[in-house]
Amino acid sequence: MKAAIIGTSGHIDLALEVRDRMPQLTFVGVAPGSADEDAREFYVDQLEASLIPFYDDYRRMLDRETPDLAVVAPFFFLQSRIAAECLERGIHVFVEKPMAVSLEQLERLRRAHAQGKAALCPMLSYRYHPAFHAAWRAIRDGLIGEPLLMSAQKSYKLGTRHPMYTHRATYGGTIPWVAIHAIDWIYWFSGGRLTEATAAHTQAGNRGHGEMESAGSCFYRLANGGSATVSFDYFRPGGAPTHGDDRVRVAGEKGIVEVVNGEAVLLAHDAAPRRLEKEEPLSLFQEFVRSIEEKTPLRISATEAFAITEIALRTREAADTRAPVSLRAAPAGTERTDGAGAVPLARSTGTPRAG
Amino acid sequence: MKAAIIGTSGHIDLALEVRDRMPQLTFVGVAPGSADEDAREFYVDQLEASLIPFYDDYRRMLDRETPDLAVVAPFFFLQSRIAAECLERGIHVFVEKPMAVSLEQLERLRRAHAQGKAALCPMLSYRYHPAFHAAWRAIRDGLIGEPLLMSAQKSYKLGTRHPMYTHRATYGGTIPWVAIHAIDWIYWFSGGRLTEATAAHTQAGNRGHGEMESAGSCFYRLANGGSATVSFDYFRPGGAPTHGDDRVRVAGEKGIVEVVNGEAVLLAHDAAPRRLEKEEPLSLFQEFVRSIEEKTPLRISATEAFAITEIALRTREAADTRAPVSLRAAPAGTERTDGAGAVPLARSTGTPRAG
Repeated sequence: MKAAIIGTSGHIDLALEVRDRMPQLTFVGVAPGSADEDAREFYVDQLEASLIPFYDDYRRMLDRETPDLAVVAPFFFLQSRIAAECLERGIHVFVEKPMAVSLEQLERLRRAHAQGKAALCPMLSYRYHPAFHAAWRAIRDGLIGEPLLMSAQKSYKLGTRHPMYTHRATYGGTIPWVAIHAIDWIYWFSGGRLTEATAAHTQAGNRGHGEMESAGSCFYRLANGGSATVSFDYFRPGGAPTHGDDRVRVAGEKGIVEVVNGEAVLLAHDAAPRRLEKEEPLSLFQEFVRSIEEKTPLRISATEAFAITEIALRTREAADTRAPVSLRAAPAGTERTDGAGAVPLARSTGTPRAG
Repeated sequence: MKAAIIGTSGHIDLALEVRDRMPQLTFVGVAPGSADEDAREFYVDQLEASLIPFYDDYRRMLDRETPDLAVVAPFFFLQSRIAAECLERGIHVFVEKPMAVSLEQLERLRRAHAQGKAALCPMLSYRYHPAFHAAWRAIRDGLIGEPLLMSAQKSYKLGTRHPMYTHRATYGGTIPWVAIHAIDWIYWFSGGRLTEATAAHTQAGNRGHGEMESAGSCFYRLANGGSATVSFDYFRPGGAPTHGDDRVRVAGEKGIVEVVNGEAVLLAHDAAPRRLEKEEPLSLFQEFVRSIEEKTPLRISATEAFAITEIALRTREAADTRAPVSLRAAPAGTERTDGAGAVPLARSTGTPRAG
């Protein structure tokens, strides 16, 4: 299988780090997502020695190298357009999240994917993180009962970020970029049953990063009467031991499961607190390639990825407008045509070849 | 100073535990807050040996013993009425939270307090908890910069609770009873600058406790553009080492302060994480008595206690109605008269003698 890299602004390390374990995969080219993206610097630093060809123009690369798969990580606002272009050419796409920075972009990508020519997988990789997967397994196995209360945290170091981050138009916002992972957890743990979002975000304290939001909170109602909150920020001190401080806590009548510091712990009523056993780490990218080759399902389907991205974008809208936003799927046949966002959640989208 | 106890349904241990350290205080009587409250059982178990007289009727006790101070902890829905009655008699009041279970009750209590005859202090004791006070001090000293993001947790064991808890009318709700402490933290740490509440609560999983909410979430906008969330539940397993799992995390541009497991930890940009030094524990009740005797200010003023109680009641309304509720104080001279809640926040109320 031939793979190409388009853009180096996202986590293409997710794809590169497993190269040695994937003899069936050959990287056939690297190109920036746009002329103003300095992909060559990354290329020289990381890839030149591997003799992968560099292209200035990704379309020429796609024409010349005819890859089976593209790793798409340009400036964030270009992700959906380039991903759609690849899908329309029949090229499978591993795309940085958020898959789109507007609902309109997302709908165009959805239409491209619905043609059924190729598979699509976003870099929402937590379902393959051993601690998060252990928590999900505990919930699925009924160890906490019905999940009625969730709280999640994403805290990152700020550092000095590329100017792309400093404009909403190119970055998309911190809810779609950072909080989306916590939204993924809540979606996963609740079976997608989020019904309403309220949110706030602020640019205060962003240390010269223009329009980039430094912090905020999200609040969700769940269909089972429960609720969930997310706290997200770029305030993690530079000297902290890890880049991110990811946490989630899910409580139900029978117990509480929590992920902190990369470990999942279960507090059940009838037992002492115990650390949950974790599987070996799996690579989302490797599993994506396998799902293409063997038609095995991924833990995150394209349909779910569309729904999660849409929830992130609608949550951003809730924060921008300071008003609650409904997340309920429009009933079949009543798709909105008012232009305010015509995408019902979790709609079946053609034949998602990657599960 | 003579003290009487009215009702034994709340944390009167807060008053009793420091008796030995307060020679100036004599307990002169114990009475139930209502005929159906079994205060005698508590009396026999805890107080009979101390020769404190038991009364069936608290009014007769107040007439006969003429206490200077009353510890008021009847069924929750009676707290405001009995507290107001004591204040009107010129008796200082140490009252279980919430001070009232409706905005109308709260307004009547506010009027009674505004007569300026006696001091009022609610059992909102966290400002005297060493770890929480250490966190507040770090914030006050600017160690995290402007606090822009807060997340808080109150998690309690459920056990089997008195039927009083199973009716909204007698209990008031889990937001005013449990989440109010987290609201107190947010109010304290933000300088009272909460502007809007959104909330959810559920009765699911309450194990036969009728209308009592088992869990929920609150979301607040702050005047500085920041936000805060609260997670509260009765899902803490019976076997857990402590009754409650209290947590709060406050983040700003310069760092993050967090209270977990009774310790406060500061993550600052320019230093390794460090545990904050804690003062010796102080008793809210003892400080209240001292504030009456010496006119020293308490860390929580009656004005603040009214504001926090009102926020808790308005947050409950937000959860009941599933709609955001404004917490902004009405500008002076524009007090609402529509009966929907005429109490602007943080209004100065006469002469709060207890600070």
